Amino acid sequence: MKKLLNTSHIIEKVKHNVKVTGARIADRHLNLAVTGLSGSGKTAFITSIVNQLLEANETAELPFFSVVREERLIGVKREAQPNLSLRRFAYEQAMQALNASPPTWPESTTGISQVRLHIRYRKNSGLSRYISEDTKLTLDITDYPGEWLLDLPLLEMDFLAWSEHCESELQSPERHELASDFLIARDALDLDAEGDELGLKHVAKLYTDYLHKCRGAGFQLLQPGRFILPGELAGAPVLDFFPLSAPQIEGLAQNRKRKGSNQDLLFRRYEHYQEQVVKPFYVEHFKRFDRQVVLVDCLSALNYGKAHFDDLQRALNWLLTSFAYGKSNLLSRLFTPKIDKLIFAASKADHVTPDQQSNLVKLLDSMLHNARKQMQFEGVSTESTAIAAIRASRAGRAEHAGQDMQILQGTDADGKPIRLFPGDVPAKCPDSQFWRQQGFDFPRFAPPVREESHALPHIRMDRVLEFILGDKIR
Amino acid sequence: MKKLLNTSHIIEKVKHNVKVTGARIADRHLNLAVTGLSGSGKTAFITSIVNQLLEANETAELPFFSVVREERLIGVKREAQPNLSLRRFAYEQAMQALNASPPTWPESTTGISQVRLHIRYRKNSGLSRYISEDTKLTLDITDYPGEWLLDLPLLEMDFLAWSEHCESELQSPERHELASDFLIARDALDLDAEGDELGLKHVAKLYTDYLHKCRGAGFQLLQPGRFILPGELAGAPVLDFFPLSAPQIEGLAQNRKRKGSNQDLLFRRYEHYQEQVVKPFYVEHFKRFDRQVVLVDCLSALNYGKAHFDDLQRALNWLLTSFAYGKSNLLSRLFTPKIDKLIFAASKADHVTPDQQSNLVKLLDSMLHNARKQMQFEGVSTESTAIAAIRASRAGRAEHAGQDMQILQGTDADGKPIRLFPGDVPAKCPDSQFWRQQGFDFPRFAPPVREESHALPHIRMDRVLEFILGDKIR
Repeated sequence: MKKLLNTSHIIEKVKHNVKVTGARIADRHLNLAVTGLSGSGKTAFITSIVNQLLEANETAELPFFSVVREERLIGVKREAQPNLSLRRFAYEQAMQALNASPPTWPESTTGISQVRLHIRYRKNSGLSRYISEDTKLTLDITDYPGEWLLDLPLLEMDFLAWSEHCESELQSPERHELASDFLIARDALDLDAEGDELGLKHVAKLYTDYLHKCRGAGFQLLQPGRFILPGELAGAPVLDFFPLSAPQIEGLAQNRKRKGSNQDLLFRRYEHYQEQVVKPFYVEHFKRFDRQVVLVDCLSALNYGKAHFDDLQRALNWLLTSFAYGKSNLLSRLFTPKIDKLIFAASKADHVTPDQQSNLVKLLDSMLHNARKQMQFEGVSTESTAIAAIRASRAGRAEHAGQDMQILQGTDADGKPIRLFPGDVPAKCPDSQFWRQQGFDFPRFAPPVREESHALPHIRMDRVLEFILGDKIR
Repeated sequence: MKKLLNTSHIIEKVKHNVKVTGARIADRHLNLAVTGLSGSGKTAFITSIVNQLLEANETAELPFFSVVREERLIGVKREAQPNLSLRRFAYEQAMQALNASPPTWPESTTGISQVRLHIRYRKNSGLSRYISEDTKLTLDITDYPGEWLLDLPLLEMDFLAWSEHCESELQSPERHELASDFLIARDALDLDAEGDELGLKHVAKLYTDYLHKCRGAGFQLLQPGRFILPGELAGAPVLDFFPLSAPQIEGLAQNRKRKGSNQDLLFRRYEHYQEQVVKPFYVEHFKRFDRQVVLVDCLSALNYGKAHFDDLQRALNWLLTSFAYGKSNLLSRLFTPKIDKLIFAASKADHVTPDQQSNLVKLLDSMLHNARKQMQFEGVSTESTAIAAIRASRAGRAEHAGQDMQILQGTDADGKPIRLFPGDVPAKCPDSQFWRQQGFDFPRFAPPVREESHALPHIRMDRVLEFILGDKIR
């Protein structure tokens, strides 16, 4: 390590600094996060984003993506991802599934994964077009489970408050039924007794089983989020806790807990979960995100019925707290979040006829309405849209009972062609009266058969790209 | 939070400090680590330790365990484990398997797991027996894969040095054969070309396949250790590297690597693996261990033949570097290790006749000899022994060709009773001549059928307990 003054070295250093500063001013790096509750279509969405960008100058149809429309895009390339400890987003495997014969939907991801793209383009005005022929934006896309965001509000609740919240969730008759084994075991538990790791593990297992059953039945507000996808925490005591019953909560609120007792273990595990499981995601990942896409599958919730639709709405409210940067917000106590653009996308818009897509956006907006009212999205520009990351149907017209109507054509899961009118989408949350009279039955389509060399067909992905990237590649 | 002076509070604090200091002086806490390469019998060993201790005053036979012999043991209890993020050692599941009808061997563990026991006992002399009627030792047992220790030497090698080491490993004809797909893909790789994540992933996958094949063929020296048990790193680029060939190493030693090229990616991943995968285990876990058990399955290596036996010996040498605390040692640069007692146990001693067990210890010693010579185990007391954590055979006598000889009786995997003389154990590493003339064929026994309420039968676990715990519970 030489410590001598060396002029050329200093000049190099100055040059380097100028370069780094330049890169910052030019906003040449963007961290895009994509999330959504399980089944919302995260894998299809990211696969489509990558595919549209890679094919932007070839076969992709992106009329609303300005850099393409203005013929300023030079090229897009996948690059080595920056965080070596994160799973690489399995783009190639997803494309393989979509290119298979017959095509299949890509496997969904279970944790966090990442992909980096380099986007080369020409600036559309200003001095810089004379300085450099082309400019580069590095786009990092991070995929993470929306369930993790459902855990954020846990940081503001102690164990008793969280138990109370869960008690109110369990009032729903359907959930209560699914929880019956858990409830019996939990209510028989002596909280003052000396800590019984195995006994607690047994009850926690029944609670986890209940969450899995809920998920299987289409519920989305499942807490704690890691109980369902434990990863390396599988079998660790930090996941061996569960919410207490109302009488247990009342008993504990008055008593002091004895060290080493069952209640003491439960409190400590809950606190460990808050500190060692929930917080690290925000500190290590969330704080780096610049922009966020939240995918919402409204149609499946409509299919399931009122209880599930309400449940999705509550889950979205919980999820939104991660993006509300009011003064009292938890996140601002942990760090300063950077997200400046937030897009909510109702996914699978190809499962309704084109004339119903505006209703789908309105429905999404009405679901988010309550949450938005209560929150201040300070300095965050939000947008709602309806998209199909990978369009699996074509719209057509047919005559039915003397009326000309829009219909959808596609293939069902067994490969049989289907033509149908999937039904109207309500423009706001339907009232109880409505649910009693009729249900919904939106179809499920198999992925489209297409030329392998062609970009993935989509609905409004170009508008999403413009919202996310447009201002960064002017 | 009151800040007022409160005398009773101060007194409480003084009391507390005295108590803590007392606990330290009395050595009332012990972190025992158990490791061994895969298949060495870690799960059976820890299950047996816990079972012997829990049953020590009832049905266990522990004549050499002084606290039991002197009738000073009051009781042992499993307690809630301290590290909530680590898997709980699955003692109950292991006992369930052993108590099943027919009994089965417990499932082996794949990562790190933990169990805590509280041991209450009476001191055998000194003032303290008058002060407190009984004393408590908290014993934490941590189970971790021996493969992780094989990675320690990587910290002292850069990527090229490690590649050279792997090249020499690949000289073995059998390994070379298993590696053929990997070798073809690797040698075709252009290291100077621009980084191709997918291409590297493909070659890394073939390298990982090779390691799995080696493992299936009975080899033990497999690096990097996490490639085989990736856990949450599955799919992450940090596991997408592999050793280079001799010509590639030579080429690189002369050239500077271009940023973003294949070679650059490989170097960075190797370095990330060193810093973010290998080191954390030592910093977070290893430095806390007070005593260590290393299990070695010599008999399977003998069964496999010379190449595997030599391989096990080399693996043990690598593994031992983690316990050699000379001045130049890597570990002392990371932290000050605490391990003061180290026991090497040849496992499955019930698979040879009693008269061969002393040879088994001698064989183990001769395998460790080279490594021990080169290392300074400063302040570490080491011991070798042969044990059966769960004895699956009974020794008997039979006449064969007019000679009275020792035989074993047990049950094979299909539940059929077997009586056999499993053969002599060589007292030192057999020479090449020997391997050419004959092989070994030690049997595999099914677990013993026994009364569920009875402690697990064993060989020399009482001596192991005495070596590990004896001085701490005097």
